[in-house]
Amino acid sequence: MPPTFQPPKGTRDFYPEDLLRRRWLEHAWRSVSLAHGFEEIDGPAFETIDLYTAKSGEGIVSEIFGVYSGKDEAELARIREGNPAPFALRPEFTPTLARMYAAKAGALPRPCKWFWQQNCFRAERPQRGRLREFSQWNVDFIGGDNPLEADVEVIQTCVGLLRRVGLTPKDCKVRLNDRRLVVDVLKDIGLSEEQMAAGMTLLDKRGKLDERELIAEAERLGLGKHFVVRFTEVAESLLSLDYRRGTITDMLTRYNALRGLIKLFETLVDRGLGDWCEFDFTIVRGLAYYTGTVFEVIADGERAIAGGGRYDGLIETFGGPATPVVGFGMGDVVLSLVLSDKGLMPAAEPMLDQLSQGPRYRPDVYVLPGGKDGADPATIDGSVRRMVAELRARGLHARQTYKSTRNLGKLLKDASDARARFALIVEGEAALTLKDLKTGEQRPISPEEAKNLS
Amino acid sequence: MPPTFQPPKGTRDFYPEDLLRRRWLEHAWRSVSLAHGFEEIDGPAFETIDLYTAKSGEGIVSEIFGVYSGKDEAELARIREGNPAPFALRPEFTPTLARMYAAKAGALPRPCKWFWQQNCFRAERPQRGRLREFSQWNVDFIGGDNPLEADVEVIQTCVGLLRRVGLTPKDCKVRLNDRRLVVDVLKDIGLSEEQMAAGMTLLDKRGKLDERELIAEAERLGLGKHFVVRFTEVAESLLSLDYRRGTITDMLTRYNALRGLIKLFETLVDRGLGDWCEFDFTIVRGLAYYTGTVFEVIADGERAIAGGGRYDGLIETFGGPATPVVGFGMGDVVLSLVLSDKGLMPAAEPMLDQLSQGPRYRPDVYVLPGGKDGADPATIDGSVRRMVAELRARGLHARQTYKSTRNLGKLLKDASDARARFALIVEGEAALTLKDLKTGEQRPISPEEAKNLS
Repeated sequence: MPPTFQPPKGTRDFYPEDLLRRRWLEHAWRSVSLAHGFEEIDGPAFETIDLYTAKSGEGIVSEIFGVYSGKDEAELARIREGNPAPFALRPEFTPTLARMYAAKAGALPRPCKWFWQQNCFRAERPQRGRLREFSQWNVDFIGGDNPLEADVEVIQTCVGLLRRVGLTPKDCKVRLNDRRLVVDVLKDIGLSEEQMAAGMTLLDKRGKLDERELIAEAERLGLGKHFVVRFTEVAESLLSLDYRRGTITDMLTRYNALRGLIKLFETLVDRGLGDWCEFDFTIVRGLAYYTGTVFEVIADGERAIAGGGRYDGLIETFGGPATPVVGFGMGDVVLSLVLSDKGLMPAAEPMLDQLSQGPRYRPDVYVLPGGKDGADPATIDGSVRRMVAELRARGLHARQTYKSTRNLGKLLKDASDARARFALIVEGEAALTLKDLKTGEQRPISPEEAKNLS
Repeated sequence: MPPTFQPPKGTRDFYPEDLLRRRWLEHAWRSVSLAHGFEEIDGPAFETIDLYTAKSGEGIVSEIFGVYSGKDEAELARIREGNPAPFALRPEFTPTLARMYAAKAGALPRPCKWFWQQNCFRAERPQRGRLREFSQWNVDFIGGDNPLEADVEVIQTCVGLLRRVGLTPKDCKVRLNDRRLVVDVLKDIGLSEEQMAAGMTLLDKRGKLDERELIAEAERLGLGKHFVVRFTEVAESLLSLDYRRGTITDMLTRYNALRGLIKLFETLVDRGLGDWCEFDFTIVRGLAYYTGTVFEVIADGERAIAGGGRYDGLIETFGGPATPVVGFGMGDVVLSLVLSDKGLMPAAEPMLDQLSQGPRYRPDVYVLPGGKDGADPATIDGSVRRMVAELRARGLHARQTYKSTRNLGKLLKDASDARARFALIVEGEAALTLKDLKTGEQRPISPEEAKNLS
């Protein structure tokens, strides 16, 4: 009898109908990324193990798959002496992104908007929703001088995907918080700088432990037995805040980081994302590197579809210049389960039709600020950003400029260089000019007509 | 100073402009595969190491990257005792394909036409044209009852890619041979069954060694010192054969396997592939599992772009039913070098345009044999196959049936089920009917018009 072979536990075989679903999801990821002006990159499937221990410490070695060349006797000898393997299968892409950005920082555009879509590997015990190999989508906004708008653009991209696959704010929410607010609160209830990391780790585990376990864990971590009770009190008062009713005033005095969060929510509402987003003070994210905004997309109150936030120290850790970054990751496993359970996974026929379309690699439209005398630049910028958000929500590949110049000639050249089809020049919320970048023709256009470009 | 990190030797970072070229190539692979009626599959990036040693022996362990979970102490202990790692990064996809086919053979279509496109890993010393991680395209025709036509269809798909990326028969050739002919010749010059594998291994190394080295290697392998001289004599007389001039008659008597090769060439000429293909008795392919037709695509007389052949014993080796298979693989590294050197790598703009199109997932046209009384089925089949070849060469997604039934109603239903746009019914080389499968309308159509469907 010849042997029969099984795939390794926690990995998947994709027969044609299985792969069609994965390709459809990847196509949605790619299409949404491109529509929001991100460019795709990729790196090696395995990296030197130092790349992962540098950021996450030696502890991560037990979470990853070690890789070594069967040809290299010296490597083998070192492993047999008890050392870790020289390489590791990537458990996540962020360290590779940081390494790649650091290596060429001076030559890259500012901001640098990158997405990535490939497989990751985790040496975990497989269970529902967690596999040892899975597909992952990362979106990162690197650099730029407007962190608030970068946060909003990244969240907009994430919501863009949710919309595209048919999810609604009834199905899932982007739950937002700010690490700086958590740090303020932890200080306030008596944690020292040294205890901060332990406090974050504990908070990230909150949903998985009951109160008794939580208190025991807090004691084990040296956070004191009253930590959990005090934290819960503050969390509850924060979660009941309503800035429209004025209950926030006292808290604002106490926790300065709340101001940034309020501004973030106001901007999200302005871009039509208000229904999707909610404040959740219990979101802290497990990884140590987050420094500001953090968020998770939670379906039906419990299943995490995506997670991300701001990690401004990351590029420096990998030898690059100090550079702000905000990004998120989304895996295929939980998302596919959610879509299947909700009956949102399309049949083969509409999938084939979507795949036959191809993503919109060329920008459909570049939205530019018009420079009429007397117009308030901030007002125009707001109109530009609202228009871009609207066009992207309708599936178009829409871009805006990140330059401070208002020289329309230069901006039109950028739009042309990016191979956009149209430039949409905004001189006011309702004063729009559409320019066909191929023929050079231009004409006034109403906001309604602009939003229905195709 | 924070550390700086490098990608592992022999792997690549893909910045946006680099990844665009890779995506463009993958898009060409996918488009050509679909146009030729293959469906995409995928499997794990790492497999249990037994999957590779089963087919290729223990020797392969030194050619691959070992993988183990950092979490599993028992695994680690076994490695430290000197055992190989439990998993390996895939050095090639064929064992996974065989495992997947064997696992579900009964439930799969016959024939089963699969393609695959992902990364592979080799623990080799990196050099020009050889990396430790690279992209690979595999095309496999599994099962079916017409091995000759399966060989032709696979070669047609390979040439389809060469055409699509702008290569011509002046740039590269498909060099064909048959393992059975090589076995006949090796027997004829005195090799025993036991020496056969050593003989093949030596022949595959021929291009890399000079004559002195080759003779030494033959002696080392126990093939005798006259082996190389005798083989060269036969090879030269075989290579000078010209069946149109009758010099082949004597050889045909001696080597029966030549008959199959001649039939293969005649069929390739019939499908418009004659200019692309040539006989090369020195092509044997390194891997032990080939059993019949073998071929390599060689650019400029030396650079191997692709290689493949028939391996009828493979599925059985992996626990499945006896099933004929023919397939080939093509990597991105050599092909990209060849395209760049020849100025055939497109600029960004045409790449973006092609990527925005999306591959033709739905069949454009299903070509079906018409059943007029008195028509010779073999003649009709020839016309069908020539038409399919022609349509595919023009970039259309064209399919044919592999069933023996000539019941047009059933065949039209298959075409509909495959979501084809048109059925083209062939009742003779110039007697064609086009049926729109959406509207049901049908009308006579000339061969010229049929070939220009779009």
